[in-house]
Amino acid sequence: MAFDGFDFDKEKDFSTWYSEVVKRAELCDLRYNVKGFVVFRPWCVMSFKKMYAAFEKELEASGHRPALFPALVPEENFLKEKEHVEGFAPDLFWVTEVAGNKLGERLAMRPTSETAMYKMYSLWIQGLSDLPLKIYQSCQVWRCETKATRPFIRSREFHWIEAHDVFATMEEAEAQVRTDMETTERVMHLQFGVPFIYFKRPEWDKFPGAVETFGADSLMPDGKTIQQPSTHLLGQNFAKAFDVSFLNSKGEREFGWQTCYGPAISRIYASVISVHGDNKGLVLPFDLAPVQVVVIPVQKKGLEEKIVAKAKAVAASLRGRGFSVECDCSTSTPGFKYNYWELRGVPLRVEVGAREMESGEFVVARRDTGEKEKVKEMELPARLNGLGVAISDNLRLKADAWFAKQLHCASSMEELAKALDKGGFVKVPLCSVKMDGKACAEKIKAETVGDVRGTRFGGKDKPVHSAVCVACGKPADEVVFVARQY
Amino acid sequence: MAFDGFDFDKEKDFSTWYSEVVKRAELCDLRYNVKGFVVFRPWCVMSFKKMYAAFEKELEASGHRPALFPALVPEENFLKEKEHVEGFAPDLFWVTEVAGNKLGERLAMRPTSETAMYKMYSLWIQGLSDLPLKIYQSCQVWRCETKATRPFIRSREFHWIEAHDVFATMEEAEAQVRTDMETTERVMHLQFGVPFIYFKRPEWDKFPGAVETFGADSLMPDGKTIQQPSTHLLGQNFAKAFDVSFLNSKGEREFGWQTCYGPAISRIYASVISVHGDNKGLVLPFDLAPVQVVVIPVQKKGLEEKIVAKAKAVAASLRGRGFSVECDCSTSTPGFKYNYWELRGVPLRVEVGAREMESGEFVVARRDTGEKEKVKEMELPARLNGLGVAISDNLRLKADAWFAKQLHCASSMEELAKALDKGGFVKVPLCSVKMDGKACAEKIKAETVGDVRGTRFGGKDKPVHSAVCVACGKPADEVVFVARQY
Repeated sequence: MAFDGFDFDKEKDFSTWYSEVVKRAELCDLRYNVKGFVVFRPWCVMSFKKMYAAFEKELEASGHRPALFPALVPEENFLKEKEHVEGFAPDLFWVTEVAGNKLGERLAMRPTSETAMYKMYSLWIQGLSDLPLKIYQSCQVWRCETKATRPFIRSREFHWIEAHDVFATMEEAEAQVRTDMETTERVMHLQFGVPFIYFKRPEWDKFPGAVETFGADSLMPDGKTIQQPSTHLLGQNFAKAFDVSFLNSKGEREFGWQTCYGPAISRIYASVISVHGDNKGLVLPFDLAPVQVVVIPVQKKGLEEKIVAKAKAVAASLRGRGFSVECDCSTSTPGFKYNYWELRGVPLRVEVGAREMESGEFVVARRDTGEKEKVKEMELPARLNGLGVAISDNLRLKADAWFAKQLHCASSMEELAKALDKGGFVKVPLCSVKMDGKACAEKIKAETVGDVRGTRFGGKDKPVHSAVCVACGKPADEVVFVARQY
Repeated sequence: MAFDGFDFDKEKDFSTWYSEVVKRAELCDLRYNVKGFVVFRPWCVMSFKKMYAAFEKELEASGHRPALFPALVPEENFLKEKEHVEGFAPDLFWVTEVAGNKLGERLAMRPTSETAMYKMYSLWIQGLSDLPLKIYQSCQVWRCETKATRPFIRSREFHWIEAHDVFATMEEAEAQVRTDMETTERVMHLQFGVPFIYFKRPEWDKFPGAVETFGADSLMPDGKTIQQPSTHLLGQNFAKAFDVSFLNSKGEREFGWQTCYGPAISRIYASVISVHGDNKGLVLPFDLAPVQVVVIPVQKKGLEEKIVAKAKAVAASLRGRGFSVECDCSTSTPGFKYNYWELRGVPLRVEVGAREMESGEFVVARRDTGEKEKVKEMELPARLNGLGVAISDNLRLKADAWFAKQLHCASSMEELAKALDKGGFVKVPLCSVKMDGKACAEKIKAETVGDVRGTRFGGKDKPVHSAVCVACGKPADEVVFVARQY
């Protein structure tokens, strides 16, 4: 356990802060010898597991069941949905040789699983009693992203959940899309403390093959947006391509109405560490921390053994109460240990020293605020639980307050460019979010490096009567949000 | 939910029974259009998740931490350990094209992760304070098995856990191998009820690159053996190939001592369903069942709504007590429902009818024995918990009793062939389990279709003084177990 200090400024130089925290907290190792592939180390994977469990629990509560589909998809499956193959073909990893033999047909490593799953759905769905079909899989997918890769944010292999549902009516599919957005809210915002806005993507930025795409955009500390879970209304596009159909109540064969939803765990983790972290390193919500409480013996000459024994006893007793606890009895100084565990974002520290043993009161320190208090031994479990909730709440509320300040308005290209320099989202009037508006979005991108993220879902952002598109000057039909993007 | 009956004889025709139960209980779909790849359906994946959790819990209790390594391994990594590359090269899936470009170096889809992980271990391990390093990953691996594939038993993509450890001494590595075997015992035998024997594999049947391999062999109902979790003492072979080394207490650079352990969840599931199943379908241990209790309303004219409401209330109350519960309110007959849930191995059924509502006592039926009893509503949670434990215990004890009868002895090739026809393991004297004995093992295989599985770990099976090898007639050094193999 080597610790060589952490002191990077998240506000002033987020990019360096991020790289250093990823490296020094041992979250991820970039030295694996395949470009764009990284190794996820235990400290992050322990949080991944909790994040997976949180999403899976919500998905199961809304009627989804887990399945596991093959990682390899035959080329012929891709060719079935035209937009989809055009969208994903440039990014595919192809298996062409197996056991010394050249394959007749190439196999793609799944970039997402529509084309693997819906062929089976076609076999499983016959009548109304087979619907709705709601299945998710927790897995990894592979896409040869050409942009620069960054750990957790963008890489060629990522870990996610994908939920694929089929319904008998368009209305049910539309309702599922809203449920998916609520799932994101309940898990990513309420549990992980990461704020976001759901945008209906413009026509030109939809998922390949979708009728409508809703993407959750969060913000990083440098003011750039990062795309989080999307949910897609697929309508009958894929159902027609893969013959996912059922006998409806009139006895007619009808194509299914589909949705899909994909929370990328590794990406959400990027937001968790970036939004909550501070200049000492990670700050983790209580329920995501691999270690929730670290117990640290503060030595006094002549009492070494007694103090260590007491620290271990306190740790064991807390473990028995369901906390995830580490007792750091290494030979380092308490100061070194404080820094070490603070860098790793452990929410609570309990100090056990000579004074504490005498008084029966332990010093408890919060990672998020640095506040310390004395807690009687008997009251420790209840108080730590209370502090755990308080820490998660505080992180979420702080993030919300910061996020609320990142919304700006502009009505001209110049204003937009200036506002984007400050970071965050900028609301501007745009002529259209149909294909007509694509050229204007491209102009905005070229002149301001801002991306049109779409219209806010459930928002009331309608342009005023006289508003004109910032790009073309024609009357504006929509208010869209623009942001620079990861 | 279509149900077309299940009535196959596991004892008389295990092969058909297995195929039918896999299909009719909707565990796995073989119609995916890549040879050797199957789709794991929700009913089996829900059990997979519990099996993964059980193994992960044990591994974490013995000091392992989870990580996630890339699915792709560069060819150069494979070339580092000679035996390993020879062992796995024939089975590899190779990625050669990415995003429209031919790769300079081929990338293999991992068949196991030694060559991906140990290159990183070399970077992570410097001194004694970095040891022991104990890491596991839950993932899927790909091997182009040339033998006939069978769902869960052998396929080209399987789901497993692999634990890879590094120690400062050979003694610690040897101790880890014993711990791994205990993990298999505690999880696969005590929790899942699947009996097995750990064999030290003969010299010619070790894991490629290992010093010693210990494999758990279980038995299928047809008397053939199926290999379950192996643990390998790797010594310093891989450490030398990948430069996994540390500064020892004398200040000298020393190679690490390694072990690896790999429980294949999908394969263990094959044993679980085969060993416990009966002619009505699956029988699942209580802690592995996706649904532990099914509540079935038994309708009476005029009371339909009241009975359904009561059934739902009972189900909800049991759910609140932590049981995984389904309430089957479909329009099918109770008899149809009984068969449907029995085929799926649900351990307990609670019947709610007019009589039950009046008396306040519910009929509870056990899947394993078919026994029924009446239980007062208030006592339901405690009694169901007790029955759950009783079912798991009964399944394990029944399996143990059956397994104990599958051990035979032989002292000649004729006796061996006859004994193998009966199924199970046959103990025979063999000249040697070193490379010298390989020709005799091949002769045994050619004449009896039996495989030499090795010597029993911890056993006292020493040949009598005058014993001679069944194959060559020379004095026998060892007693080995022979079995026909999946």
